[in-house]
Amino acid sequence: MTTAQRDAIGEHEIRALIQDKAKAIRARDAAAALASYAPDVLSFDLIEPLQYIGAASVRERLNQWLSSFEGPIGFEVRDLSVTAGQDVAFTHSLNHVDAKTRDGRRIDMWWRATECYHKLNGRWQVTHAHSSVPFEMESGQASLALKP
Amino acid sequence: MTTAQRDAIGEHEIRALIQDKAKAIRARDAAAALASYAPDVLSFDLIEPLQYIGAASVRERLNQWLSSFEGPIGFEVRDLSVTAGQDVAFTHSLNHVDAKTRDGRRIDMWWRATECYHKLNGRWQVTHAHSSVPFEMESGQASLALKP
Repeated sequence: MTTAQRDAIGEHEIRALIQDKAKAIRARDAAAALASYAPDVLSFDLIEPLQYIGAASVRERLNQWLSSFEGPIGFEVRDLSVTAGQDVAFTHSLNHVDAKTRDGRRIDMWWRATECYHKLNGRWQVTHAHSSVPFEMESGQASLALKP
Repeated sequence: MTTAQRDAIGEHEIRALIQDKAKAIRARDAAAALASYAPDVLSFDLIEPLQYIGAASVRERLNQWLSSFEGPIGFEVRDLSVTAGQDVAFTHSLNHVDAKTRDGRRIDMWWRATECYHKLNGRWQVTHAHSSVPFEMESGQASLALKP
């Protein structure tokens, strides 16, 4: 197998993991959504604090987020780019949620997502994730209404 | 050379690039700070818009940022983690700036930084970067005063 073939397989595997994750989010299944996350993952998330350390902390946050919605969760991953090597890979994309909160607000929001993978014991695992919105310099407000 | 030796060398090379970048920022040298950035880098930055596409756009933004300060720029990279494979690598860290703006405000701010590298033509190049602060859910304000 050439390096290019190996990297194409890696990219294919990671795209499948991201599709699985998107399906799991739509199904409100936090455990499935985080199936490829390493136990010691370090996540920079949309909201405070600065960092979430470890899979348990990331799962608690995801459960909280999923349970804030009522009814169907529209979730989309756009402009996905995957760079895969032998045992290290990363992705970036623009992610979108369109859903209604339990208190009746509609959330229609895009954010930037980066996921970083390490192949450990033959399995791609997310050891680092980074999700964010930028902010508007004058007001200091998070930019929650940007569209790609 | 074993895989572990190769990865240790990769990690060492990337730590050196990040030290060089930090020095260049303190020296207000945007070109040097971006010496390892690929021409087609895609950057998610602290402030709007959602994404900066290409090295020219990233450099313009960095020049703008550097020229907003007066006097010395304190810049620190903390908790740097580097995961390096054969030709793909990523890093994450908490970055800190402490400086005075031209209009007299003191900026003392921490943010989350992720950099993703691809080794192209034998040279590590940043093809994706992601810098952000989280936001505070109730107010929608960017969290500009968090400390690690």
